[in-house]
Amino acid sequence: MPSNAILLLHCPDQPGIISELTKFITDNHGNIVYLDQYVDHEEGIFFMRIEWELEQFLIPRDKVRDYLQTLYAQRYSMTFNLYFSDERPRMAIFVSRMSHCLYDLLARYKAGEWAVDIPCIISNHEDLRFVAEQFDIPFYVWSIDKDHSNKAEVEAAEMELLRRERITFIVLARYMQIISDDMIAQYPHHIINIHHSFLPAFVGAKPYHQAWRRGVKIIGATSHYVTAELDAGPIIEQDVARISHKDTPDSLVRKGRDLEKIVLSRAVTKHIERKILTYKNKTIIFS
Amino acid sequence: MPSNAILLLHCPDQPGIISELTKFITDNHGNIVYLDQYVDHEEGIFFMRIEWELEQFLIPRDKVRDYLQTLYAQRYSMTFNLYFSDERPRMAIFVSRMSHCLYDLLARYKAGEWAVDIPCIISNHEDLRFVAEQFDIPFYVWSIDKDHSNKAEVEAAEMELLRRERITFIVLARYMQIISDDMIAQYPHHIINIHHSFLPAFVGAKPYHQAWRRGVKIIGATSHYVTAELDAGPIIEQDVARISHKDTPDSLVRKGRDLEKIVLSRAVTKHIERKILTYKNKTIIFS
Amino acid sequence: MPSNAILLLHCPDQPGIISELTKFITDNHGNIVYLDQYVDHEEGIFFMRIEWELEQFLIPRDKVRDYLQTLYAQRYSMTFNLYFSDERPRMAIFVSRMSHCLYDLLARYKAGEWAVDIPCIISNHEDLRFVAEQFDIPFYVWSIDKDHSNKAEVEAAEMELLRRERITFIVLARYMQIISDDMIAQYPHHIINIHHSFLPAFVGAKPYHQAWRRGVKIIGATSHYVTAELDAGPIIEQDVARISHKDTPDSLVRKGRDLEKIVLSRAVTKHIERKILTYKNKTIIFS
Amino acid sequence: MPSNAILLLHCPDQPGIISELTKFITDNHGNIVYLDQYVDHEEGIFFMRIEWELEQFLIPRDKVRDYLQTLYAQRYSMTFNLYFSDERPRMAIFVSRMSHCLYDLLARYKAGEWAVDIPCIISNHEDLRFVAEQFDIPFYVWSIDKDHSNKAEVEAAEMELLRRERITFIVLARYMQIISDDMIAQYPHHIINIHHSFLPAFVGAKPYHQAWRRGVKIIGATSHYVTAELDAGPIIEQDVARISHKDTPDSLVRKGRDLEKIVLSRAVTKHIERKILTYKNKTIIFS
Repeated sequence: MPSNAILLLHCPDQPGIISELTKFITDNHGNIVYLDQYVDHEEGIFFMRIEWELEQFLIPRDKVRDYLQTLYAQRYSMTFNLYFSDERPRMAIFVSRMSHCLYDLLARYKAGEWAVDIPCIISNHEDLRFVAEQFDIPFYVWSIDKDHSNKAEVEAAEMELLRRERITFIVLARYMQIISDDMIAQYPHHIINIHHSFLPAFVGAKPYHQAWRRGVKIIGATSHYVTAELDAGPIIEQDVARISHKDTPDSLVRKGRDLEKIVLSRAVTKHIERKILTYKNKTIIFS
Repeated sequence: MPSNAILLLHCPDQPGIISELTKFITDNHGNIVYLDQYVDHEEGIFFMRIEWELEQFLIPRDKVRDYLQTLYAQRYSMTFNLYFSDERPRMAIFVSRMSHCLYDLLARYKAGEWAVDIPCIISNHEDLRFVAEQFDIPFYVWSIDKDHSNKAEVEAAEMELLRRERITFIVLARYMQIISDDMIAQYPHHIINIHHSFLPAFVGAKPYHQAWRRGVKIIGATSHYVTAELDAGPIIEQDVARISHKDTPDSLVRKGRDLEKIVLSRAVTKHIERKILTYKNKTIIFS
Repeated sequence: MPSNAILLLHCPDQPGIISELTKFITDNHGNIVYLDQYVDHEEGIFFMRIEWELEQFLIPRDKVRDYLQTLYAQRYSMTFNLYFSDERPRMAIFVSRMSHCLYDLLARYKAGEWAVDIPCIISNHEDLRFVAEQFDIPFYVWSIDKDHSNKAEVEAAEMELLRRERITFIVLARYMQIISDDMIAQYPHHIINIHHSFLPAFVGAKPYHQAWRRGVKIIGATSHYVTAELDAGPIIEQDVARISHKDTPDSLVRKGRDLEKIVLSRAVTKHIERKILTYKNKTIIFS
Repeated sequence: MPSNAILLLHCPDQPGIISELTKFITDNHGNIVYLDQYVDHEEGIFFMRIEWELEQFLIPRDKVRDYLQTLYAQRYSMTFNLYFSDERPRMAIFVSRMSHCLYDLLARYKAGEWAVDIPCIISNHEDLRFVAEQFDIPFYVWSIDKDHSNKAEVEAAEMELLRRERITFIVLARYMQIISDDMIAQYPHHIINIHHSFLPAFVGAKPYHQAWRRGVKIIGATSHYVTAELDAGPIIEQDVARISHKDTPDSLVRKGRDLEKIVLSRAVTKHIERKILTYKNKTIIFS
C-alpha cells in the first residue's frame, strides 16, 4: 500500500487557507482522501487535518515539509505537523500491577487493529511480566524506592531506553507513579494517561472511593495528555457508566475497569491515526 | 382506585425484618404489590420500600402508623415514613428566567403523568408569568434586592405561602438564588435542585463555561436535594451528553437545557412516587 | 443581524471543488463562517455545507443562485440548495391525542430556541386543542372516518391550508395516521416523523408492546423523513434508553415518551438549521 | 472463604413466599447476604434470588436441595436452582477467526475477575490457536466441511469433549457456525451467543452491512441464550454506540468489536454469578 501524507495544522483564521492548500495539493496531483477543518471563532484559530495520496504526487516525499514551510507556514503563521502513513508510531507502555488496560492494548496490537509498534513495556513492579511474555514484548522493571530517592536515576534509565527504542509516544496503562516534569518535557502532549474518574471530578488518589462517598449516580474515566499539573492536561476522551446506591467501592472499581480500557484505547487509536491536535489546554479530535 | 399504603424504612440490618413485615402485612390481608429492599453492608443498614393494597387490609388506615411504631419501630430501631397513594404530594416550583425546565414540568403535570398538585409558582422575576398563566397556575413574584437586604423578609413571605398551600416539597427549576438555611430546615431533603453540571465537577456559577474552559468531552446535569452546603446535597439523578471541540459555551448551554429538563423531571418523578430514601448524604432510589 | 447564505450540495467527487467554491466566495468578499464537507468513498459522492456572511458579499442576494447554477452546477453535475438565514422555515405540526411531543416543540418555539414559524397545528381529534390555545396557534381538526372514505377529501383540505400558510416542512408529532403518497410527494424529505422504536426493529403498530414481548434490554426512538414505504425513510436521529425485566408495556410507553420528545426535537433542530442532506435513502447530518 | 448457597426460583405469585423462605433460612441460622425479588404482575409469577452463608447453617449442604424440594417446591409449584458459590461453573469457548472477544474473555479469566474454569477452547479453524497457547488452554479444532456433511460427526466429538470436561455452559465468542438443535438441547439456556446487532434488528448474516445500508444512527450488540430459532433466544444484555454518515461498513465492524466484547463479557459475568433467571423467552437479570 503506497503511503499517504497527513498534515495537521493550525493558524490564525483568515480567508483562503483551505482554498490555497487544497489547490496546492491537487495541482501537484495529490489525491485528497480526507479533509476536515474547524474554526475556533472564540480564539480566531483555524485547525485542519488533510490527508492525500503520495503515489502521483509531484513533490518528492522528503521535500514536502520544506515546501509547506516555505509556501505557507510563515505566510499564515502556521504551526504544522506532517506525517507519513507508513511511518508507524512507536509506543511504550508503562504499567504497575493491574492487567486490564495492558491486555486490552496488547490484544488490539496483536490483532493488527493499530498501525503501531510496541517495542517495550516498562514497570515499577514484576507483577505483569507474564503478560509481556505472553505477547513476546521486552519487559523492563525499575522499582522506585518508597522515599523516591532513586526516582531521578530510574527515569534517566527509562529515558535512555525510550531514546534507544525511538519511542514516539508513551501510554500510561494504570501506571501508579507520577511522571517527572523532565520526562514530560521530552514528550510534550505525547504521554497518554488514563484517569479513573470523570475529570475534573475526583482528581488524585482513589477516585472510585471519592465517587462512592459523594454518592454520584454515574462514574467515568478520562484519557488525557500528561502535563506538569496532575490530572489537568488536555482531555482526549471520556466515557461514563451508570451506577446505583447498590454499588460498593469494590464494584465501582470493577465497573470502572471496563471504562478505563475503552477510554484509553480510544485515545490511543486517535493518537496513532494522527487525528488529535492540541491547542492551549484542549484537544481538537478529528473524526 | 382504592388507596395503597407505601412504607419506606431503614434500620440496622438484622435477621428477620423482611419476614416479620411481610408476614404482618399478609396476615392482615394486605396484598403486597411492591417490595424492594437493599442492605448497605458497609454501614450495616437495611432499607426497604413496600407497598400494599389497603382494600382488604384489616388495620384501619389511620391506625397503620401506630401499629408500625408500636410493633416494629422501636424493636428494630427503625426510621420509617408511611404514605398513602391517594394523598397527592403538593409541589411548589421556584423559577427565575429560563423556561425550559418549567415547561417540561408543567407539560407533564397537565398531561397527567404525575399524581401531584402544583398550587403555586414562585419567582424573583416577572419573566415567566406568561407560562404560569398559560397553565392557569398562580404566579408569585418577590424580587430580591441586589444587596440581599430584603432576603429574610422575602423568604418569610414565601414560607407563609408554602404553609398556606400545604406544600410538601419544592422544585427549584433553574432558580438562580441560594435558599437560606432556614427554609432548607423547613423542607429537609424535600427541596430538589437541578445543577447544570456533572457534580461534583463544576460546583457554583457558570458550570458550562467552566466545562468549556477545561475542555471536557462530556457535560452533565445533576438533580439533588438541597442542603446547607452549596451543590453538595444527596444526588438523586445525573445524566450526561457527549460534546466536542466544536462546542462553544453557548452550544453547551443549549445542549445542557435538554439534560437539565430530563434530569430534573426524573428526580421529581421518583420523589412523587415515594421511591427515594436518603441516608447520610446519599440517596437510595428504588426502581 | 445581517443574513448569511447557506449552501448545501452534493456532486460526484472530483479534485478542486472545495478550492473553487471557497475561492469563489472569498474572492467575492464573503466571509465563510461554516464549512463542513464529507466524501462518500463508496458512492464517490462529495457533500458540502458552507455558510457565509452576505454583508460584504459582492454578488446580490437574488443573483447568488444563478451564479452557482451557471458557474458550478452543470460543470460538477452538482445538486444544490441555497438558503438565507433570515428566511425562516414555516413548520406545520400534525398531532393526534398525545401531548408530550407537541408541548416539547411549542415550549422550544416559545422560548425562541428555533428560527422557525409555526402558523398552524393540524389534528384528526379535538383532544389537543387546549394546548394550541395555550400557545395561541390556530388549531385545525379534520376527523377521518373509520373506513377512510373521506381521507382524500381531508388531505385536500389540509394541503390547501399548507399552501395558504406557505408551509415548508411538516412535523408529525405522534400523528397516528398514514400520510398519503400524494402529500408525501408535495413534501419530499420534508415531513419528519417520530417512530417509537429503534428502527428497523419494530416497524408498524405498538412497537413498545413488540419490544416488551421480545424482551429487549434497550428501547429506542427514531426520527426520519417520511417516504412512501412505511417507517422506511431516511433516518435523521435515534436514541435509546436502558430498560429491564421490571418494565411493563405501560412503563415502556412512559419511558419512551421522553425519548420521543428529544429525538423528534433534535431532528427538527437539524432541519431548521439546514444541516441535513439526503442522498438515496440516507441522511448526511452536518454538525 | 466459606461457601454461600444461591437459590434462584420462580413460582406463581402468592402471599407469604418471601416471609416463609427468609424465615426458613434465618431460623436455621443462615445469614442472608443477598435478596432480590420481582413479581411479573402480567404473568402472575414471582421470581427470587436469595443468597446466604452456609457457615452456621444448620442444614447440611447436601440436604438443602431436599429440604427446599420437600418444604416448598411442591406447595408453591416452585421451579428452583440451587448453587454453591464454591462450585465454579466450567465454561467452554467456541471461536472462529476473530480474536477480540476471545482475548477479552481470557484476559478477565487470567486476571481473576471471574470464579470460573475454562478447560477448553473449540474452533472450526486453526487461526486462533496462538491465543489459546498464550493462555495455556487446550485448543481443539474440528473443521466443518463446506457442505456440512461432517457436521453431525463434529458435534458428536465436541459433545464428547464437553461431557469429559464437565462443561456447564458454552460461550460462542463470534463462532460463525449454527449450533444444532441437539447440542442446544444438551445446554438449554446455557449457551451464550454474541450477535453483532441490536436484535431484533438485523437478524442473520452481515448485520453491520445491513445497518449501514439502512442508514441507522446507532449500532448495537446483543448477547442472548441460544435457542432453536436463530438469533431469537432470551436476550441477556444489549448495548449501543452512536455512528454517523461518515461510517463505512468497515468502520462499523471496527466500532462494533468494542461493543461485542463488552456486551458478551457482561452476559458471561451475570451467568457466572448466577444472576440470570429465564422465563418463557425472556431473562430476569438480578443486580
